Amino acid sequence: MRDVAIIGVGMTRFGELWDKSLRTLMAEAGLAAIQDAGVERVDGLYVGSMSPGLFVHQEHIGALMADYMGQKGIPAVRVESACASGGHAVRLAVLEVASGQSEFVMAAGAEKMNDGADATDALATAADQDYEAFHGITFPGLYALMARAYMERYGLTREQLAEVPVKSHLHGAMNPNAQFRMKVSVDDVINSTMVADPLRLLDCSPVTDGAAAVVVAPLETARKMGRPLVKVRATGSATDALALHNRADLTTIPSVGLAAERVFKAAGLGPDDIQFAEVHDCFSIAELIVMEELGFFDRGKAGIEASSGVTQLGGRLPINTSGGLKAKGHPVGASGVAQVIEAVEQLRGEAGDRQVEGARLGLTQNMGGSGASCVVHILEAVS
Amino acid sequence: MRDVAIIGVGMTRFGELWDKSLRTLMAEAGLAAIQDAGVERVDGLYVGSMSPGLFVHQEHIGALMADYMGQKGIPAVRVESACASGGHAVRLAVLEVASGQSEFVMAAGAEKMNDGADATDALATAADQDYEAFHGITFPGLYALMARAYMERYGLTREQLAEVPVKSHLHGAMNPNAQFRMKVSVDDVINSTMVADPLRLLDCSPVTDGAAAVVVAPLETARKMGRPLVKVRATGSATDALALHNRADLTTIPSVGLAAERVFKAAGLGPDDIQFAEVHDCFSIAELIVMEELGFFDRGKAGIEASSGVTQLGGRLPINTSGGLKAKGHPVGASGVAQVIEAVEQLRGEAGDRQVEGARLGLTQNMGGSGASCVVHILEAVS
Repeated sequence: MRDVAIIGVGMTRFGELWDKSLRTLMAEAGLAAIQDAGVERVDGLYVGSMSPGLFVHQEHIGALMADYMGQKGIPAVRVESACASGGHAVRLAVLEVASGQSEFVMAAGAEKMNDGADATDALATAADQDYEAFHGITFPGLYALMARAYMERYGLTREQLAEVPVKSHLHGAMNPNAQFRMKVSVDDVINSTMVADPLRLLDCSPVTDGAAAVVVAPLETARKMGRPLVKVRATGSATDALALHNRADLTTIPSVGLAAERVFKAAGLGPDDIQFAEVHDCFSIAELIVMEELGFFDRGKAGIEASSGVTQLGGRLPINTSGGLKAKGHPVGASGVAQVIEAVEQLRGEAGDRQVEGARLGLTQNMGGSGASCVVHILEAVS
Repeated sequence: MRDVAIIGVGMTRFGELWDKSLRTLMAEAGLAAIQDAGVERVDGLYVGSMSPGLFVHQEHIGALMADYMGQKGIPAVRVESACASGGHAVRLAVLEVASGQSEFVMAAGAEKMNDGADATDALATAADQDYEAFHGITFPGLYALMARAYMERYGLTREQLAEVPVKSHLHGAMNPNAQFRMKVSVDDVINSTMVADPLRLLDCSPVTDGAAAVVVAPLETARKMGRPLVKVRATGSATDALALHNRADLTTIPSVGLAAERVFKAAGLGPDDIQFAEVHDCFSIAELIVMEELGFFDRGKAGIEASSGVTQLGGRLPINTSGGLKAKGHPVGASGVAQVIEAVEQLRGEAGDRQVEGARLGLTQNMGGSGASCVVHILEAVS
């Protein structure tokens, strides 16, 4: 398996994009990534998207995106693992190039969630239909169960939990592609509308339209092309049961721990080597548990760490400098790709006001449902 | 890239399976493939499924299938390219093993179409939503346009076209897993209910529930395990525009020709080397055009060939010995995997009454929509 690099990135603004269709968003992101990569053609395409069938009544979007970005004829396929679809698209593109089968492969992600579909209902198809969704529970409810269990077990306070979105909005306010570019306070969070006790509106990632794309190439090709060298050091992936009731401990997300174990082993690295990360903060509680599963914080300590400033820009381990799913927005299939784009911009030193100084090693963590699937990548700036 | 073999196959019966849910079908096929392969664990899973969200309101089925077949934790992802989803699942599993990344990878396909959803509406999401489906055309209509153009151009008669399903039912009657195990006559076809002129009910593949799975392993591992050696000689894939109106010639399906060119080049073979094939006969006209795109017949001649008996068991080039999508049934995401299973059974010499004598080289061709995506595999019995 040869070394692989991300040589081009492109994304749309995330938000309520009423004037752009799914195909327009995909073409815009794809063309931007191709232009950034400096190539004329890609050899293959993986598009992560959770549910274009339910959101805009359009499946078969691999071929559609290939055509609308001027690459008709190439092998193209959609990949889906709920909100981890984008992470899987990147993983498969990396694998295809690493294997030597292809030279330039695009991984993209897209979701058009604001076009009239019942987003909560569509998203609930990522949960277990027979044992969860059918009975009426939706994702805010599932994560609220996890939040309540975590608060009871570890004494996490409502104020500590609020520090997660406060930090995300602080970062998102500096991201021109973010859906929400305003700062919020702990008071704003704990006084926002109740969604599913204890989670309030500002604990929840929004419903978003958007697309993102990256071009993967052999590291040696990137070097010859004179591209900034952002190497994909390793990828890891894992699954778990779909239904939350099958989890032995509601304060854990085992698929994240397992994917982390795999990616760190493959990379020959540990959590202490990582300088910054984009993690899957679909709900505030998710970020805390994920940070523990990734080995960044001890069990039960993520709340204290979050309120200490460690994960803010300028802290020891900046998390979600893009604004995360919470402030940047969460077009579900695109999120895993957009995480990689933020990491690439950090590693190229092109993150502007959000730049993590001296960034060399970053991690992205993308998951589906209440954690039934997870994909983790480690990216590295090399010379 | 190392040589790869299919070491295990398993499928459910295809049909209206009212007493089995999607997860039950997936588990049944997956467990059968694992048992046939003689392994205890697979390292990864690709599940082809077109629209479980629209059919049974359940996305995220990669993780779901992994869990329900006792493989919780493995990397698992769904892949979708409309009715070519299963073919893509096989392609990705082959690539993952060939690259050396994994040892045993499962490719599966599943669709549960008879659970209350409007199947015609769900299937229409494989067409172009903005330019086709929204305006009311469905797949029988799209293929009827192709059939009418072909009849006008090449003088294909209604009787010649009917020979395709007559042959498929002849074969399907011998397949215990087929949805329809009765023979039909040319008269039956041309007098069946009109669906979209000139296509009648017996020109159209049915709405089907079912699942299929194969286990892919390195050829050398298969040899050491003493498994029958069915090598994946090559795979090829291509795309085209989603909307039929973008096609220069309605009597062609360019993605099939392009995928065939790629697979024959990769295999170092030509159409004349192939002894039997499973092709995507979603409608009778599709089989005729596909046979020409694959290089088996000259342009405009497939109708004459079809009525000469060439493609029947015992003929020079038996096609769809399984009964094809028409008689075996077409649970869309599963069809591409079930094609590979038929080829494996032929190459193992285990096809019973349907056995192609001396079968050594077979081809499978799976496509999506009106041909916007296509995946072709060539399989070979080796010693």
